[in-house]
Amino acid sequence: MKFRLILVGFGNVAQGFASLLVKKRDYLRTRHGFEYEIVAVADTIKGSIMAQTGLDLERLLSLAHERGSIKDYPGGVRDLSGIETIEQAHADVLVEATWTNLKDGEPGLTHIKKALERDLHVVTTNKGPIALAYHELVALARRRGRHLRFEGTVLSGTPAISLGTEALAGSSIKSIRGILNGTTNYVLDEMRTGRTYEQALRTAQELGYAEADPTNDVEAWDTAAKITILANVLMDGSIRLADVHRQGITEITPEDVSDAESKGRRIKLVAEARRNERQIRAQVIPERLDQCDLLSHVPGVLNAMILSTDVQPDVAIVGPGAGGDSAGYALLSDLLALNRILEGK
Amino acid sequence: MKFRLILVGFGNVAQGFASLLVKKRDYLRTRHGFEYEIVAVADTIKGSIMAQTGLDLERLLSLAHERGSIKDYPGGVRDLSGIETIEQAHADVLVEATWTNLKDGEPGLTHIKKALERDLHVVTTNKGPIALAYHELVALARRRGRHLRFEGTVLSGTPAISLGTEALAGSSIKSIRGILNGTTNYVLDEMRTGRTYEQALRTAQELGYAEADPTNDVEAWDTAAKITILANVLMDGSIRLADVHRQGITEITPEDVSDAESKGRRIKLVAEARRNERQIRAQVIPERLDQCDLLSHVPGVLNAMILSTDVQPDVAIVGPGAGGDSAGYALLSDLLALNRILEGK
Repeated sequence: MKFRLILVGFGNVAQGFASLLVKKRDYLRTRHGFEYEIVAVADTIKGSIMAQTGLDLERLLSLAHERGSIKDYPGGVRDLSGIETIEQAHADVLVEATWTNLKDGEPGLTHIKKALERDLHVVTTNKGPIALAYHELVALARRRGRHLRFEGTVLSGTPAISLGTEALAGSSIKSIRGILNGTTNYVLDEMRTGRTYEQALRTAQELGYAEADPTNDVEAWDTAAKITILANVLMDGSIRLADVHRQGITEITPEDVSDAESKGRRIKLVAEARRNERQIRAQVIPERLDQCDLLSHVPGVLNAMILSTDVQPDVAIVGPGAGGDSAGYALLSDLLALNRILEGK
Repeated sequence: MKFRLILVGFGNVAQGFASLLVKKRDYLRTRHGFEYEIVAVADTIKGSIMAQTGLDLERLLSLAHERGSIKDYPGGVRDLSGIETIEQAHADVLVEATWTNLKDGEPGLTHIKKALERDLHVVTTNKGPIALAYHELVALARRRGRHLRFEGTVLSGTPAISLGTEALAGSSIKSIRGILNGTTNYVLDEMRTGRTYEQALRTAQELGYAEADPTNDVEAWDTAAKITILANVLMDGSIRLADVHRQGITEITPEDVSDAESKGRRIKLVAEARRNERQIRAQVIPERLDQCDLLSHVPGVLNAMILSTDVQPDVAIVGPGAGGDSAGYALLSDLLALNRILEGK
């Protein structure tokens, strides 16, 4: 079927998604019966444009790449905010890819609510709203008979959410363990060569794996948000981000790393959610893993998640956990799932 | 929705599936809106019984466990063959779990064809028909507007087929590598302790990991069938089982294993399918993997599959590759997918 899309947020992730849409246009139509029209794009920095007759995505991409702004796109209604765009554009799906805010989820949270209230489906990579307000948003989506999908919030384009909810449907998930953050995994790997935390972090920043302010990653907020999402979505939990016992990697020394290595172990930042009687407990802490643990063999910026179910002991998935292409693909995979659902195939 | 099921084949896998149905009956109804009625069971050894008003699955299971036969089940129409059952029972889905025959796919192939021709959906764990006649069966299913699902043919209950076709939909899969057979992986692991191939195989047989006649596993026929399925389903291939370059593990000596280990490598039976210009080439051969290769860290009877796509370099899944519970779960996961598709949710 044909989807009319609004893109709110037009940074790396949304541009990665848009590039895939352009590149795969014919393939998506012939292979999956999936067609699209972009009716609006809104970004607080790059500008916003709305045209009910459809926008030229290739042109928007080249404007964004070349000028860092889509303001020179000709015609259309311009300068609407994200919320105004959602209110005014006639669309089927909101693609929400604004920045992650783990304090109050904004502006993504309001975007998603507004869209669901206006009977749009929503696909998003934005961890804030899902980590902070999953149950509220799902209830709203149900009331409106709309779908909310967020594959890219955990493990990026590597299927984690759909692995638990769809591929392993009918299983009851008892516990989840994972390496859910590529930046810290890269830094810890680098430290195995004898570098200090600061040196390793600097390399990660130079390579674009870590942000200028790395707090979210190295203090494990990002990982905590992801394990919150997994616990609530895959284990029917209702834990809050603040409930996650959290310890980052900033205190780890090269001596810690080499001491672990000398004992055949490897330090990894491990997220875990486990059912303890009726409660679910979640934590993110650096652990010394032995070589039998698959997580000890997940290198660099890769991520991994291991699900323990009532039927099968451990099912693990390993793959990219970040990057515009991978996260952009997560949005596409959500849209294709929506297409399958709505077409009943 | 409610599915009327025929079970053809009532061995370990079908009994594992039936146990899950019994144990999870309430959960499947309340959580997934999935209900079932068993209208017929047919097994060449255990007997067959058909009753349009529904059979008591718990009773069938205890008869099978206690007496190795369901012939004493009271009432119903009895002694029908698999084909007669499919022709006479009024059902929605055939659950085909007879033995795998890699020569001509029978009797599973005829069961599946008959069922599709009679407008039943089919879920199966039977590798024979899918490895030998995938395209023919899919074309038949399409003509009849019915679904054919076979998650359990590769990696058992660990999602491999749906990972490629659904979770990673929209990706183009460039190559597949995997450890697809638990028996040989276990034997090779045992040989790392210095045992000979024969000793390791005997242990595997004692533990029930290898059959009395292990040819299918150790000569890599089983793995070859699985990589044929993966190449054809996930890469749009049309390779034949006979096209797979195949080498088993029977010639591997403890010296080979220890020589590899001394060089930091590990011998694994690796299946691979790769697009070579327009053709797909598939092979199964013992390889010496280095430690950077995730496959080198897949122990014992676990299985693994790595997909390389145009969007993401490597996405790997690791989990159980055999066992009645796991394979039985694969059938349940196919039915739940069917339920989602038919309910449009």
